[in-house]
Amino acid sequence: MFTKTAVVLLIGDELLSGRTTDKNLPVIAQKLGEKGIAVIEARVLPDIADVIVDTLRAWSPRVDYVLTTGGIGPTHDDITAACVAQAVDRPFVRHPDAEAALRSYYKPEDINEARLSMADMPQGASLIPNPVTGAPGFFINNIFVMAGVPSIMVAMLDFVVDFLTPGAVMHSQTLTTTLMEGDMAHVLSAVQDQYPDVKIGSYPHFQGKTRGVSLVLRTTDVHRLTQATDTLQAALNALMPTP
Amino acid sequence: MFTKTAVVLLIGDELLSGRTTDKNLPVIAQKLGEKGIAVIEARVLPDIADVIVDTLRAWSPRVDYVLTTGGIGPTHDDITAACVAQAVDRPFVRHPDAEAALRSYYKPEDINEARLSMADMPQGASLIPNPVTGAPGFFINNIFVMAGVPSIMVAMLDFVVDFLTPGAVMHSQTLTTTLMEGDMAHVLSAVQDQYPDVKIGSYPHFQGKTRGVSLVLRTTDVHRLTQATDTLQAALNALMPTP
Repeated sequence: MFTKTAVVLLIGDELLSGRTTDKNLPVIAQKLGEKGIAVIEARVLPDIADVIVDTLRAWSPRVDYVLTTGGIGPTHDDITAACVAQAVDRPFVRHPDAEAALRSYYKPEDINEARLSMADMPQGASLIPNPVTGAPGFFINNIFVMAGVPSIMVAMLDFVVDFLTPGAVMHSQTLTTTLMEGDMAHVLSAVQDQYPDVKIGSYPHFQGKTRGVSLVLRTTDVHRLTQATDTLQAALNALMPTP
Repeated sequence: MFTKTAVVLLIGDELLSGRTTDKNLPVIAQKLGEKGIAVIEARVLPDIADVIVDTLRAWSPRVDYVLTTGGIGPTHDDITAACVAQAVDRPFVRHPDAEAALRSYYKPEDINEARLSMADMPQGASLIPNPVTGAPGFFINNIFVMAGVPSIMVAMLDFVVDFLTPGAVMHSQTLTTTLMEGDMAHVLSAVQDQYPDVKIGSYPHFQGKTRGVSLVLRTTDVHRLTQATDTLQAALNALMPTP
């Protein structure tokens, strides 16, 4: 139903050890969704070069866009940029504009080789500005490389989305109900069968004694969305206990 | 360094649309880490049978354990159990003990086909009790299938970890410093080179004007951990500006 697709690669051992909870995927998914680009899968990858390179090579030809977060700082465990260079078969070289950005961000006495290494990128990469700490991300081919720190990632993402070709936007409607999933499953199936082009998701929530279900209908066709939503709402109303 | 490995599959369109933020991966990673089992990768998968089946088939032979969350409710978009049956080439059948659990949880008048369908599992599966809503998870071969709702997942995970063979536990030490990554990167590299068996991760945080870096050292060897931590701490102290 989406016309454009993306994969998101969340890179960093800290996400796989339980130390850090990823906050970036939902933000990226939301932003891309608004642009009609579906995140069709996401992967959380360790700081292991072979894994990152293989994953980039496998996905780049399969989707419109590959977005990565994490691993572009100045320390030894920041290996994303070198992995992207290897994945796209380009030399890993110092980008003059990135070096200039770093030199203008830091005081001259704070410039050192570790900081300048953040300007090393695949040859031919274009920069993604970093308004927070100066060290830019970059993109090459269909791969967009962003920071892992959420405040920086968000700023970079705002820049990135302007470069992405929009797809057909997925519209959604959410119905909430106090009916239990098990009491309305047959109705959901029937409406899903009647509207195969509208994806219907059922998401129960349990907060203390409060239980409920959110039903999310999604499609690129606003007219069909309205029809399916009305049909489902009427069917749910018919299930509600009479007062 | 870990002797046991796992992959975590987070299943559900809502995680890829931005609607829901996963809270399960860090909890699983933490719990497995305490048991000496490393989560070597995680994937966020859509509610698409082929994707789920292919991913299960690819990973099950490559790791000690596959853990899944999500997609085991009573509605049409809950397809995980059927996918696991397909992946392990077993018939998808009603599990008598799971059916009994559901029949004892629900009032007789609330039992219906949708709810009973939550007892459909790969033939030969063993149950993972669900103390929250009655509908059990299950495991078969090395695949453990849990709910996506965090409160239920946590309860199931407590049960699951008792079935997993422990590996060598990874011990960690965290040093925090006000030094910037770019000012200590050379020291981190040197200590990492000196202790190749100790994984050193560098995690900057930016909260308003407060910046700092957490350095996490990880290894299964407590003695080496102490040595590497002391070496790094001394090297960081030497970098601190003299008062």
